[in-house]
Amino acid sequence: MGKSLAVSPLAPASFPTLPDIAGVEVATAAAGVKYRDRTDVMLARLVPGTAVAGVFTRSATRSAPVLDCQAKIGGSPDQGAAILVNSGNSNAFTGGRGVESVHAITTAVANAAGVPVDRVFTSSTGVIGEPLPHDRIIAKLDEMAANLAPARLEDAARAIMTTDTFPKGASAEITVDGKAVRIAGIAKGSGMIAPDMATMLVYIFTDAAIAQDRLQTMLSDLTDKTFNCITVDSDTSTSDTLLLAATGASGVSVDASPDFETALHGVMLDLAHQVVRDGEGATKFVEVTVTGAASDADARTHAMSIANSPLVKTAIAGEDPNWGRIVMAIGKSGAAADRDLLSIKFGDILVAENGWVSPGYREEDGAAYMKQPELVIAVDIGLGSGNATVWTCDLTHGYISINADYRS
Amino acid sequence: MGKSLAVSPLAPASFPTLPDIAGVEVATAAAGVKYRDRTDVMLARLVPGTAVAGVFTRSATRSAPVLDCQAKIGGSPDQGAAILVNSGNSNAFTGGRGVESVHAITTAVANAAGVPVDRVFTSSTGVIGEPLPHDRIIAKLDEMAANLAPARLEDAARAIMTTDTFPKGASAEITVDGKAVRIAGIAKGSGMIAPDMATMLVYIFTDAAIAQDRLQTMLSDLTDKTFNCITVDSDTSTSDTLLLAATGASGVSVDASPDFETALHGVMLDLAHQVVRDGEGATKFVEVTVTGAASDADARTHAMSIANSPLVKTAIAGEDPNWGRIVMAIGKSGAAADRDLLSIKFGDILVAENGWVSPGYREEDGAAYMKQPELVIAVDIGLGSGNATVWTCDLTHGYISINADYRS
Repeated sequence: MGKSLAVSPLAPASFPTLPDIAGVEVATAAAGVKYRDRTDVMLARLVPGTAVAGVFTRSATRSAPVLDCQAKIGGSPDQGAAILVNSGNSNAFTGGRGVESVHAITTAVANAAGVPVDRVFTSSTGVIGEPLPHDRIIAKLDEMAANLAPARLEDAARAIMTTDTFPKGASAEITVDGKAVRIAGIAKGSGMIAPDMATMLVYIFTDAAIAQDRLQTMLSDLTDKTFNCITVDSDTSTSDTLLLAATGASGVSVDASPDFETALHGVMLDLAHQVVRDGEGATKFVEVTVTGAASDADARTHAMSIANSPLVKTAIAGEDPNWGRIVMAIGKSGAAADRDLLSIKFGDILVAENGWVSPGYREEDGAAYMKQPELVIAVDIGLGSGNATVWTCDLTHGYISINADYRS
Repeated sequence: MGKSLAVSPLAPASFPTLPDIAGVEVATAAAGVKYRDRTDVMLARLVPGTAVAGVFTRSATRSAPVLDCQAKIGGSPDQGAAILVNSGNSNAFTGGRGVESVHAITTAVANAAGVPVDRVFTSSTGVIGEPLPHDRIIAKLDEMAANLAPARLEDAARAIMTTDTFPKGASAEITVDGKAVRIAGIAKGSGMIAPDMATMLVYIFTDAAIAQDRLQTMLSDLTDKTFNCITVDSDTSTSDTLLLAATGASGVSVDASPDFETALHGVMLDLAHQVVRDGEGATKFVEVTVTGAASDADARTHAMSIANSPLVKTAIAGEDPNWGRIVMAIGKSGAAADRDLLSIKFGDILVAENGWVSPGYREEDGAAYMKQPELVIAVDIGLGSGNATVWTCDLTHGYISINADYRS
């Protein structure tokens, strides 16, 4: 990078205070993988008994660490686990040498953290196609193992950043059977964000006790409602990884707690929205809701067509209430639509209905609405009861500047 | 618009000299539909016996003129035909009033040009969702009818421009049975360009004699190899129209002439490439060729995924030989690929093979190649014999500037 990007205008005011999660220890280091003068590696150690669930990119050109990580999900939790993440280099499309790097790192982490190698999960994010200088990471492992401590999640969120302009964290605390259960998560990601999933790394920790297969099902279901409903530029990374570790250290079983799933949903949605808020060059946070489609799948197709349309996204950047481009995006999506049954709202403002502009719509109202940083575009297709909501940002000069220069 | 865009650096040096097509007369006028101080309407009259074939957008929110035009294809050629096109307003998503405008215009053109109303084909391009001031167009019809003359295709190409920075024309002449047969076409389109088809209007005229159903089959087949293989921004217009009129005035039947189909293919490809060369903000003309895919359809999916990727397109804008983003685009396309069998070339430079950078590749060679205005990205998937070629342009600050301001 070498350059420092201004913090997104859509960023939260500050990093949230995250609770310590019993059974989780974290450390970071500046290994100099690519960046200078900043941390670029995080290590998390998880106590014996920790269940780990994961969701990964479906790219056909997934990176070596993703393939390794994916293969290890579902293993025995008896002897603890570790997560190691580096930024600056994605170790993607690096051939046999990439596999060797993963082997070298996982072996060294297993030794340093005292866990089995088949319970070492690694992620790498950054440049594609350059060999990962894994010796630099391995050289820092003893230092990190000595520094492991519970309250370092904000440090970890900073260490995994690439083009991110702010660190991302979210948490929740619920009471089950009179006892506290905590969830805390961190994420990185700002470009190449689209299902499935994004250039996105997400690590969520909880002290809840829960069976591994139940944890995996919950994570997969909630990913479809959160991280798979955001898009920055329609591109999909070779490295996307979402890991959820449940240490059980609270001693509270949440297998039968709907509150836990709701709280986890909230943490995941918060992190997903923060990723959109840090979309490269973003100046507007946009919710696109489609109702009345022939099916939920059709609603999602329409919503994603609107959210990914360069013409819609540039109109939003220009604060232009250009509903014609929304009609265009619905028309091209491939899902069922009838031009004369559509209605379109900007927030509460009814803009178009019955195949044309609404009689009560005034252009100046639409223009005033578009000046806000947070927008809701609501479309009713008028055909059925399918619905979907997705989140995106605008497409600006900032996106071009970042991506015409940054070698990712 | 109100502003004048600089001519694309990828534009041809000058508008080509187009041959007169026997049986075709053209006129233009400045009707003031939206623009000031320029022509914005073209009228073409076609002699009795003219076969007319057409291909149209598949958008579910097609405009009123598209629906009218589409319904008329295949009618009897006995009494001649007329084509009327306006720029500045697309008459799309204008409800019942849009249908009334089409009715008013087609009726008036039929009277002015002396052809049946069911042989009057109209197109409108420009702003969506505003009523078309059709009276302004109708007021100019007598003047245009009086000015009809064969050699006005360049004028027509200028009258139909919207955000285009140069008028687009192409022609061919072949000899069949010792006699000359001529083809000449014009096009407009610069944004919302993607299958199927584009914000694109194309009118091609020939004096060949050919049966209507044969003409339609040929046009549909060649569209799949030309206009449906270009993309500027992945968006699809509500108004795309391609009309091909064969007057038969040369007296030469081309039903059995492969040369005619080849020549028509050449004219269509030339016009399609000119549309890409005028892509909004474009500074690079890019051919993407995919070979070795599991099928031709898979090859096309990969090629379009590369050509539409914002990250690939911004890397090209930045003259960055970022082949990692090409790997990413192949991985996300959904078509079959094996990371370790891919190879990627920039022109003749072998960049990546066997799952990693090629041993002989030097970054400075790739960087020098990317500085050229015309680029070829060639990918071999290594799985089968499917292939496809598509054309696109880069994604620049110019695209953002044009589309964050222009109400289309």
